[in-house]
Parts: sequence; C-alpha cells; structure tokens
Amino acid sequence: MELEFIRELCQKSTSHPRVAVGIGDDAAEITWPAGEGVLVCTDMIADGTDFHLAECGAEAAGRKALAVNLSDIAAMGATPVAAFVSMHLPRENGAEVARGVMQGVRGLADEFGVAVAGGDTGVWDHPLVINIALLGETKGASAWQRKGAKPGDRILVTGIFGGSIFGKHLNFQPRINEASLIRSLAEVHSAIDVSDGLSLDLHRLCEASGVGAVIEAEAIPLSQEARQSTDREPLAAALSDGEDFELIMTVAPDEAEKLFANSSLRELLTDIGIVTEDRAVRIRQHEEIRDLPATGYVH
Amino acid sequence: MELEFIRELCQKSTSHPRVAVGIGDDAAEITWPAGEGVLVCTDMIADGTDFHLAECGAEAAGRKALAVNLSDIAAMGATPVAAFVSMHLPRENGAEVARGVMQGVRGLADEFGVAVAGGDTGVWDHPLVINIALLGETKGASAWQRKGAKPGDRILVTGIFGGSIFGKHLNFQPRINEASLIRSLAEVHSAIDVSDGLSLDLHRLCEASGVGAVIEAEAIPLSQEARQSTDREPLAAALSDGEDFELIMTVAPDEAEKLFANSSLRELLTDIGIVTEDRAVRIRQHEEIRDLPATGYVH
Repeated sequence: MELEFIRELCQKSTSHPRVAVGIGDDAAEITWPAGEGVLVCTDMIADGTDFHLAECGAEAAGRKALAVNLSDIAAMGATPVAAFVSMHLPRENGAEVARGVMQGVRGLADEFGVAVAGGDTGVWDHPLVINIALLGETKGASAWQRKGAKPGDRILVTGIFGGSIFGKHLNFQPRINEASLIRSLAEVHSAIDVSDGLSLDLHRLCEASGVGAVIEAEAIPLSQEARQSTDREPLAAALSDGEDFELIMTVAPDEAEKLFANSSLRELLTDIGIVTEDRAVRIRQHEEIRDLPATGYVH
Repeated sequence: MELEFIRELCQKSTSHPRVAVGIGDDAAEITWPAGEGVLVCTDMIADGTDFHLAECGAEAAGRKALAVNLSDIAAMGATPVAAFVSMHLPRENGAEVARGVMQGVRGLADEFGVAVAGGDTGVWDHPLVINIALLGETKGASAWQRKGAKPGDRILVTGIFGGSIFGKHLNFQPRINEASLIRSLAEVHSAIDVSDGLSLDLHRLCEASGVGAVIEAEAIPLSQEARQSTDREPLAAALSDGEDFELIMTVAPDEAEKLFANSSLRELLTDIGIVTEDRAVRIRQHEEIRDLPATGYVH
C-alpha cells in the first residue's frame, strides 16, 4: 500500500516553494533562509488516547495531529514551514484511514501555508497512531522560550479554558496568526502552549524561568463547557483540564499595554496575573492567596 | 511519566553545538549554515512488524529506529545533524522500555555526532511504536536523489545482500561514513538505500530517473545468510529480502574507476551492472537476460 499512497501524496505536494526535494525520495529537502535556525517539534497521537477514531473519524485525527504541532510552533512565536507525517494504520481499513488522515492534515496545512513534504506509513493489527514532525522559522527574530519570564511581567493568555474534551481538543485553531501579530507589536519574554493544563503549564514556564507567579482566579477566562461542568468547579476545569492549546505569555507591563491597544488582541487576550521573584506559583481568590497545585494531564 | 522522562533527556542533551534550544521547550532550535537546505526524513517502526521487543529488547529497537533514518540520510549523500524521537510505550513497563530505547538511540547518535534534540512520549495499552525524524545537511553539495541516473552509468552497491532478518536488520551500520567518502571522490548521479529489497529499490531508482538497467546475477554480493537459505535460491533472497540498508548508486564509468582506486571502497563496493536508456529493468544470468520483477517488502 505504501507505494500507492506515496504516489498519491506526491501528486499533491509538488508545488510548495520551500520544497526543493519532495515526497518520494529517501529524504525531503527544504530550502532555508540564511541565518535562520530550524525550529522542530514532534508529537505522536494515538487512537484511544488523544482521539477516538470511531467517533471523530480519520480526518479529525489528522487535523489534530498537525494542530498540536502548530500550537507548539505558535508557542515559539514562529511560522510553520513543512510537516512530515508518519502513521501506523489499522489493517482492516488502512487505505481509507490514510486518506482521511491526509485530508485532515492537508486541510490545515493549506490554511497555514505549510508544505506536507514527507512521511512514512505502515499497517498493523493495532490502533491508528500518527506522528507529525513540524519545521518552523522565526524570520530573523529570537524564538520565544519557556525561560525568560521576568519578575513584574504580566501573564497573558489567549482564548478560554476548560472542557476542551467536549470538542475543542479536536477543532481548536492553533494560535499561529495571533502569535505573529503579537510578535509584531510587543516583546514577549517567555511563552508556552497549554497542552496539559493552564496550571501545570504555567508551573513549567515559571520553573524554566526561575520565577513564580500570582494569578487572579476571577480573571481566568472560563469556557462555556467549564462553566457547565457538573462534576467540579468551573475554575478547576479551566486550570487543569488541558488540551486548551492556548498560549501563556509573559510581557513587561508597558508591552502588555501595547497589545491591549490592538482591538483584535483586546478580544483575544486576558491578563491573568503577575510574575514574581518568589518562586512559588499562587492563585488569589476571594482576597485569599494560596499555592496553585501543578495539576493537569500528565502523559 | 513524561516530565521525568523529559528531565532525564534534558540532562543528557545540552552539549551539542548545533542545538540552540534543546529538549524541554515547545520546540527545539537547531542552528543551520547559510545556504544549506534542510534534509528531513522520518520513519516509524513498531513492535511485531519491524522488531520483536520481547526478543531483541528496547535498546536494539531504539538503535534500529535511528539507523533506518541514518540510512536514508546516507542515501542522500548527506550528514545527519539532529534527531527527534517520539514513542508510544506499552503501559506495563513503559519507563524501562523508554530508557532502553533512548540508550539505543543515543548510542548510535553519539557514533555519528547526531544531537538528540527533542521528542514526545505517550503510554498506551498496545505495542511499542517509535518514530524518529532526522535532519541532515549536505555541506554545500547537492543531495543525491533517486532521479539523475544516466544511460551508461555503472550501478554500484555497498555491502552484501539477503537474509537481513537473521540479524543485520537490527545491527546494520548505516552507510553515513561511506557515503561521505564516496562523495569526496566521485560524482554520484543517483542513489537510494535498500530498505525494501535490491530489486524493488533498483526499480524505484530507475523509475525516478526514467531509465532502465541490466544487472549481472553473478555480480550480486550474497550474504552468508542468503547463501545458507534453505527455502529458496540465495540470489532470490539477495534480490528481494529487503532491510539490507545498503546503498545503490549510479556513477559514470570513469567516476566508478576513481572509487575502485580507493582501497577501502574496493572492499566495500560492487559493480553490479549498467544503466540503460531502455526503461526495462533486467538481469543477466547464465548468458540469458530476463526481466527483473520488482519484488521486495511492500509495507
């Protein structure tokens, strides 16, 4: 099946200006601007853990496989360039699943101008597993890292949090364009995307930066799904559900002002708190400050 | 487990000169020389198909996951730079398997000066699957491609063929150093690595180049395992077993002479035939020429 599949891919992947050697050789060659580092992320997602193929279909699975990587590239303040898609397909309907996955990947890749430049396929007697490796670039700027947050920085987040399992984890819009706009307006000191939970990923950013934080419970933007949560507090859902694929960024207060002066960012961004020199990560609720546990989804 | 695992990786991956941002951020950043394209290949291998974890152990599986990618980079005449390792681990002994895989990856990465710069891990109730994406560069030269073979070219192969399943598929030495030496001595018109079978991969090279070939049955270097094959002809084993991970290259006759003038290449290389304008791929045996079927392992 691989031959047929590779041929099918070939026909659809010849026209990207950055692909010097495309699918169908032993490796692809991507042209690279002088002086640019190569950003690389990779994510493996699997049926039964990250999606349920029988419920969502192969196209949604393929879309998610690329989207989670795009979110990582957005969190570096970077632009995605080329994706490499590997999968192991269930034997019984492998060709159909492969087509669906590639449709999902390609649809999203086209939205962001990303080349689908290579891959690898196998068939086996177990559930679908997809890996995407994604290359990105920062166009002369420095990549945003988790480290770099400074005491006094405002902590900004994109979008809303909690209850992603009810749909957003499959159809979220990776914050590529938003990151690009933010980069053009302000200096971001540190950033991370929320894959495992706002609380856990904020802890990671603080740890990498050697700082702490105080966030405001009332400020955290709750999704409708978090608000309607029946089994626990909406705030707890927003803090620890994970798979929100929003960005946490820290910027100096005057830089935050520049961002909030932009009308579309004013809609998108929320200031949820401040970076502290004290390394504790805390939350203020009803005038009380308590430690924020590093809860979230740990793989 | 991911946190602990990532931390473990971090401590061992900080010192590669090409890694500007390493494991532990949303993406890695690899520095890249001006004017160089980025070669990328990716391969996914799985327990039960590409290796048998219970028999070979996790370290051998990890080694193979990198080795098959190194073989692809060698087939482009390129030098490997940085590897990105994703895996889904069996739940029951995931941490132990992860450690073994990374030992295998890292051992081989160190041999070839490759940075292990990122990755992703998950745990599930199914067999081990490993994906590696590998970046490479050609240091100012053009990458070898499958296309480019010219009528009259000699067809050269490295090493020996057949019976890889008896051990070589796990412990083969990727032809990175050999490719580098060959590049320094001669102009290679086209190349491919033999992953699926000498016959099938020669067909692929010829198809990509729009040429044919006549190879000499008596010239094909047979492995000891192919010679001892009890269920079929040694020649058939050499032509179609696959997973030899040797290189097929085509070069002009005078360039072939330059290569055979080198004593270490004289040991390594065999001239197995000639590229033809006629697009048929044929084999001469006992003074008779017949079509060579495109047999091999099709995924």
